[in-house]
Amino acid sequence: MRRLRTVGLVGVGLIGGSFAAALKRAGAGLRVRGFDRDAAALERAVALGVIDETAGSPSEAARTADLIVAAVPVRAMGSVLHDVALAMPAHAIVTDVGSTKADVVRIAAAELRERAGRFVPGHPIAGRETSGVESATADLFRGARVVLTPVAETAAPALALVRSAWEGAGARVATAAADEHDRVFAAVSHLPHILSFALVSEIASRADAAELLEFAGGGFRDFTRIAASSPEMWRDIAMQNREALLAELDRFGARLAVFRELIDKGEGAGLERLMAEARAARQALAPATRRAPSE
Amino acid sequence: MRRLRTVGLVGVGLIGGSFAAALKRAGAGLRVRGFDRDAAALERAVALGVIDETAGSPSEAARTADLIVAAVPVRAMGSVLHDVALAMPAHAIVTDVGSTKADVVRIAAAELRERAGRFVPGHPIAGRETSGVESATADLFRGARVVLTPVAETAAPALALVRSAWEGAGARVATAAADEHDRVFAAVSHLPHILSFALVSEIASRADAAELLEFAGGGFRDFTRIAASSPEMWRDIAMQNREALLAELDRFGARLAVFRELIDKGEGAGLERLMAEARAARQALAPATRRAPSE
Repeated sequence: MRRLRTVGLVGVGLIGGSFAAALKRAGAGLRVRGFDRDAAALERAVALGVIDETAGSPSEAARTADLIVAAVPVRAMGSVLHDVALAMPAHAIVTDVGSTKADVVRIAAAELRERAGRFVPGHPIAGRETSGVESATADLFRGARVVLTPVAETAAPALALVRSAWEGAGARVATAAADEHDRVFAAVSHLPHILSFALVSEIASRADAAELLEFAGGGFRDFTRIAASSPEMWRDIAMQNREALLAELDRFGARLAVFRELIDKGEGAGLERLMAEARAARQALAPATRRAPSE
Repeated sequence: MRRLRTVGLVGVGLIGGSFAAALKRAGAGLRVRGFDRDAAALERAVALGVIDETAGSPSEAARTADLIVAAVPVRAMGSVLHDVALAMPAHAIVTDVGSTKADVVRIAAAELRERAGRFVPGHPIAGRETSGVESATADLFRGARVVLTPVAETAAPALALVRSAWEGAGARVATAAADEHDRVFAAVSHLPHILSFALVSEIASRADAAELLEFAGGGFRDFTRIAASSPEMWRDIAMQNREALLAELDRFGARLAVFRELIDKGEGAGLERLMAEARAARQALAPATRRAPSE
């Protein structure tokens, strides 16, 4: 496999910055050229040593890179990949870190065209309570899962290089079809976020919200921690993964209706059985290798 | 106020044991006589110094007590208060630690009859991941909220004594009507538990549950932590607070339908606005003074 010498990083936030820091730690002599629309963030990234030099555009970040990392919101992906396509070297490989993948695959096919085989869609399952390059750390992905969603035309060496880069950052890499990825994350991530936002939204809308929240205990805090996530990011995810999310909302609604019916009818035994099955499944979940409060 | 010399503790689990330990620490010379249906737990409570001596029945625990603490599930409350009523000294005061209060008020009126004014219904908002007297600690209630729900006939000195006992354990005491308590906790505790159980129940019921759960990140773990709570306890709470919980389920369902509609229609701006309001409310929540994973 070709050795990475130069990485072009578009977007120097928490995820992009942490990946760059991890790549630099893993590869002696590797240089990162970064671009961000936020000029102040870009300067901080240099000051923090997360990147080595700045670029004035996505094209400039891509121009001399072996690996181009598009660490931007999915809504910016089309514009970024369009610019990258104009400038990327023939041998370069491109990857992203978006939370939804079927839409990214479509955008990459449209923007990278004959180079779409050099694009490896990726989703690192990691995050922190805080965002921004100030929170970036080379350790963010240690023990974290990363899902890569190659398509039929994805070049095998491109997939191998991106896999190897993530493994060098300490991540455990899995591959899945993009649709399958989106379906899985609709169930275990996007749906819980919507439910948590909806619960807090409902309570916050009441005249007696302050009184209610005064008695919120640890259970409420755990359940609603993800309702403090970025509204912009989660709006995007809901829009980008709409079909799968709607299907999950309906499955959840049907199950919740069963719970409601059991409560309404006073059928304690049936309710307890469902709760016991849920508890067994929750308890069987392996402990998290690290705190990853958002994904 | 009369000084507490002897406490009769019925139920030596985490809550009862911790309250006894806190009372003993606060009051030099105070003795606790405990009863539990689980003879082994009772012996461990003595060995751990949580109680001073054992009783063979709730009546025997109550017979010489200034304060009787019924730290048993609400479903056992009728039987325990029936026994306590037969034996309690005329001056004694009785309290409980149940998670629902309107039903406990009704049970106390029926069982304690002319002594119902000496009963002070209480609900400490505290818990731990673990249960049982082995986990009991005099610090469990330090900084925790306790809600007392006196009725019209509750004797003022009885209320004052129970308040003072909880404050001696480090708790912050509030009072509320029992119905109001049940309405508040239906919203901020019972509903989230049902939603969390329902989500895990739905996912666990699928053929591909293992694959889905393999990709569960920190958000899912936070959201579902309360789905590992006791099915027996939460079955009881759902049954005991059925009316208020059903009302909360319906309010939540209506709000979730709004979220679903916005997602279905692709109305990102409206969705983001609701999410932003929820985030602001969640962020305004004061940090927990301690971890209280269940209530």
